[in-house]
Amino acid sequence: MKTKYIIITGVAGMIGSELLEQIIHKKNYVIYGMDNFVLGKKKFIKKFEKKKNFKFFKIDISKKIPDRILKKIDNNISEIWLLAANSDINLGNKNEKIDYINTFLSTKNTFESLESKIKSHTKVIFTSSSAIYGTVKKKIDENFLNFKPETNYGLMKLFCENYLLYKYSKLNFMLNIFRFPNVVGENLTHGIIYDFLKKKKLKNNVFQVLGNGNQQKPYSYSKEIIDAMLFVSSLNKKQVIVNLGHGDNGIKVKKIVKLFYKYFNLSKTIKYQKKLRGWDGDIPKYSYSTKKLKKLGYTFKKDSLNSLKACLLNIK
Amino acid sequence: MKTKYIIITGVAGMIGSELLEQIIHKKNYVIYGMDNFVLGKKKFIKKFEKKKNFKFFKIDISKKIPDRILKKIDNNISEIWLLAANSDINLGNKNEKIDYINTFLSTKNTFESLESKIKSHTKVIFTSSSAIYGTVKKKIDENFLNFKPETNYGLMKLFCENYLLYKYSKLNFMLNIFRFPNVVGENLTHGIIYDFLKKKKLKNNVFQVLGNGNQQKPYSYSKEIIDAMLFVSSLNKKQVIVNLGHGDNGIKVKKIVKLFYKYFNLSKTIKYQKKLRGWDGDIPKYSYSTKKLKKLGYTFKKDSLNSLKACLLNIK
Repeated sequence: MKTKYIIITGVAGMIGSELLEQIIHKKNYVIYGMDNFVLGKKKFIKKFEKKKNFKFFKIDISKKIPDRILKKIDNNISEIWLLAANSDINLGNKNEKIDYINTFLSTKNTFESLESKIKSHTKVIFTSSSAIYGTVKKKIDENFLNFKPETNYGLMKLFCENYLLYKYSKLNFMLNIFRFPNVVGENLTHGIIYDFLKKKKLKNNVFQVLGNGNQQKPYSYSKEIIDAMLFVSSLNKKQVIVNLGHGDNGIKVKKIVKLFYKYFNLSKTIKYQKKLRGWDGDIPKYSYSTKKLKKLGYTFKKDSLNSLKACLLNIK
Repeated sequence: MKTKYIIITGVAGMIGSELLEQIIHKKNYVIYGMDNFVLGKKKFIKKFEKKKNFKFFKIDISKKIPDRILKKIDNNISEIWLLAANSDINLGNKNEKIDYINTFLSTKNTFESLESKIKSHTKVIFTSSSAIYGTVKKKIDENFLNFKPETNYGLMKLFCENYLLYKYSKLNFMLNIFRFPNVVGENLTHGIIYDFLKKKKLKNNVFQVLGNGNQQKPYSYSKEIIDAMLFVSSLNKKQVIVNLGHGDNGIKVKKIVKLFYKYFNLSKTIKYQKKLRGWDGDIPKYSYSTKKLKKLGYTFKKDSLNSLKACLLNIK
């Protein structure tokens, strides 16, 4: 079997580290992982450090990849997983530079650094987000183009998509763009469960929830997200842009609180805010269509509730 | 009459310098002009230098505006004309950084530098381009959203639009986005006539035209473009995105050559290339709808042919 050379940026993040776990056992894979450990955590990749087919580089990928690293990477790259991003949306709202540098510049500069190694058979895989859509009343499908991101995070994901599509129009490679719902998994670095876990540990007797609890959004379990991406990318489509997820109508924050309380047997007093949005740019309600994904041949087994249950069960 | 404080970036460019000429006589206007003289020319603004209501700053606006300059700018800004950009599309194709820095970062950093001075009555005026559309067979109107820019220039103009629309969703100000066709005028800094003028001066006997001469695009005369922008911005619309131009089907390069030869009485041998596109990303044929502009109350008098004639007559 021919050796496959795989690059994963943001390898120590939630998706990156779980993707690594899924593919590292494949004998013909050589995986180059990169991370700056801003959100990613060393402990998520520690167990893979000694694997012969895994080479890790701690670099700031918002800048061009240094030549000394590039030299170590094979010229025949099979897949580039552009996962590195600031996934903490709220943090990016407070300081716009964070998304600009860690999401947009990481994607752009990684791509440009590797451009000479990108061939017609190279798959470039980018993890985008439902956040590019903004507030839309109907179920959003991939034909929807009136993008109105409400967060700097969403804007930068849109920039990355535009950038990669432009590059795709100029160069010969394969492009997979996956638009994520909210994702939960064991290696959390951000998001509602991450927030709840922090609040659980606080020594006060109040459990402060962001927003009025009526926000309703779809969630998926990280393992299923990765499974779906591996499935779609294995189809060898020249170009594909697809929403990932179960396609259900999502779950209310209040219900997630209830679930969390049940799993952790909490008794703190729950406090909601009086506002619709938990934070600036929080989309109170959305759901999107995953018909295209189903047509491609992949159906998520877990809906939002079961995704959250799977996550909580494994974290507990 | 209340004083109006106007900022123009790229004030020494073709559009900037002609805009300045149009509005500088207004007694209640104080105009802050900025340029780095990369494409803009000192001679275009020389005659205004001594005007009391014109303050010029030679700065690199791809970076944040320095505090020492910001201090000199009134806090009550009426209009910000974001004109600074790399308008040499071909140059930007050869070196992508140029568009990224001179178009995208200029727009972003100027906006961010001035953000605290932007009020609900402030008009932010951005000059975008038909280049964001890409190759489309039908007449493109403003409802068309499937942007596929084929040049780095177009991609960066699209980034700027997305960026400004995002800012518009967060802050209270007025936003005017004008999408330009090809523009010709006296203060040329780039484009087909600029190229022809350079070639006219060459001492050889061959006149080399880029592309096969069948490229067909719409042209407008700079004075009319500025007139249209001043008209639309005076409507005080909260937000408007509009294509500018006559709305005709454009003019073929071969016809422009003929016209140029007539005006300058040339006898050099004309040579065309054998390719459809004069340069990478040259859109061989497009035209776009200007119905929206007409509905707003403005109709261009000059079609492509007459725009070119007006330009040549004044250059001669």
